[in-house]
Amino acid sequence: MKQNIGFIGLGIMGRPMASNLLNGGHKLHLYSRSGVPDDLIEQRGIVSHSIKEVASQSDVIFIMVSDTPDVEQVIFGPNGLIEGLSPGKLLIDMSSICPIKTKAFAKKVEEIGCHYLDAPVSGGEVGAKSGTLSIMVGGDEAVFHKAKPLLQLLGKNITLVGDVGSGQIAKVTNQIIVALTIEAIAEALVFAAKSGADAEKVRQALMGGFASSKILEIHGERMIKGTFTPGFRIDLHQKDLNLALSSAKALNIALPNTATTQELFNACVANYGSQLDHSAIIKSLELLANFSLNSQTE
Amino acid sequence: MKQNIGFIGLGIMGRPMASNLLNGGHKLHLYSRSGVPDDLIEQRGIVSHSIKEVASQSDVIFIMVSDTPDVEQVIFGPNGLIEGLSPGKLLIDMSSICPIKTKAFAKKVEEIGCHYLDAPVSGGEVGAKSGTLSIMVGGDEAVFHKAKPLLQLLGKNITLVGDVGSGQIAKVTNQIIVALTIEAIAEALVFAAKSGADAEKVRQALMGGFASSKILEIHGERMIKGTFTPGFRIDLHQKDLNLALSSAKALNIALPNTATTQELFNACVANYGSQLDHSAIIKSLELLANFSLNSQTE
Repeated sequence: MKQNIGFIGLGIMGRPMASNLLNGGHKLHLYSRSGVPDDLIEQRGIVSHSIKEVASQSDVIFIMVSDTPDVEQVIFGPNGLIEGLSPGKLLIDMSSICPIKTKAFAKKVEEIGCHYLDAPVSGGEVGAKSGTLSIMVGGDEAVFHKAKPLLQLLGKNITLVGDVGSGQIAKVTNQIIVALTIEAIAEALVFAAKSGADAEKVRQALMGGFASSKILEIHGERMIKGTFTPGFRIDLHQKDLNLALSSAKALNIALPNTATTQELFNACVANYGSQLDHSAIIKSLELLANFSLNSQTE
Repeated sequence: MKQNIGFIGLGIMGRPMASNLLNGGHKLHLYSRSGVPDDLIEQRGIVSHSIKEVASQSDVIFIMVSDTPDVEQVIFGPNGLIEGLSPGKLLIDMSSICPIKTKAFAKKVEEIGCHYLDAPVSGGEVGAKSGTLSIMVGGDEAVFHKAKPLLQLLGKNITLVGDVGSGQIAKVTNQIIVALTIEAIAEALVFAAKSGADAEKVRQALMGGFASSKILEIHGERMIKGTFTPGFRIDLHQKDLNLALSSAKALNIALPNTATTQELFNACVANYGSQLDHSAIIKSLELLANFSLNSQTE
């Protein structure tokens, strides 16, 4: 069934996602701070002149912006969604933002008779383009099932994790595990190489055992080759760990290795910039050990 | 070809390994501080009355003891291997010990015309019994190929990692990754649960993505169920991280998250004892957060 859909935020992720919704045969009302890209207009996307206009003309509105304050501005700012919403409409926030704030946003939106799902994704630009994102959803089960056909145009592995906010919690949880596993591989490979072993042979020996993971496979290889083209940029992972650490602070959760890993990302940015792949965290450990994996293996 | 083999150390690991070598048709000269178990005598294992006697009657001698000082005592102590060795004999140390000391031990053994391989294992008691251990070997390539038919009676995934000491380096590297990944999952699940999500649903949502690993699967499940029957005991992992940290100290390698993870194991032992599975590290994080995953999920 053809639906009136809004889409706010047409950046690296939002643009291909909106394109996939258009390909699904839906009518899309588009808004982006930096204007609507031509290719979406060629796909018959409709340019809206304000976020409020998107809200008033759409039954389901997607948000895909950078951070918590951006989502807050989109919903509650001047000419924002809240001014154009009417009861029964559904707001789906696919940005990766603070779980605690998400619960507060949802409460306000539900108070005016609308529905709210948080649905952050993993899979990056590649997954957004191919419609194979993993989508972690928080919200009411009936609302989830109503939204599912649309989400299936965007992703493959779509899970209802729990109540509103649970999608964001799952995303932050994911990013904690990914960051700390990358850091673990980095400590381990610096240890192996500076101890005098061939880091690549050690990595090969460990694959298949308990130490094996996609991260040992993919990020471990990047570390050994010294190729840090993203992939996933350090500054984005810093943002995610900041969500983890600020939520942890608010809830009195001690996350010692998450905190140290964030510090090592900071040191990496100080020395090598923020645009490298997150596996470049190994460069912070190389710096601390006054040692380079690459000068050894070349 | 039937060989005269020595085996020193017949504990939880050594006993089934010696049994597998006997099943391979070899003549085994056995020694253990606590005596030779009856089942190995029934398998026609030969009881030696000293380590020196094992060395003089065997061409290949295996060592499988607990820690670095034990290996040192076996080789260089009174009535030790060194007193019974003669040129051409091969010593295979399968214990998990210090990589740096291993290189020193090998040097002394090679000076008297003998050969040395370090060949620590992973796979635990189950792998030792079924002959499916992973074996990480350091040493000369020709010596490795000579030893391989014997090692194949003990394990499946047998890798020559590099020079003498490289097997131990690979083992320590493995244990760093395993410990830090377990700790990562623990921080992540405490975060998810105390943030209000269902930790098990979050775990399910993350499997298949970049956060996935055998550890998320197996240890993550143990943490959520609160079942900490080993598996692999905390005190053994503390020993391995101690090898990592003391080697790192000697080589000036900073391993910040390895150090913190060891401290969390220490806190776990202080509060809950040393005999739980290493996934019980989550209990240290629960303690710090004044929160219990299990009281929530039950």
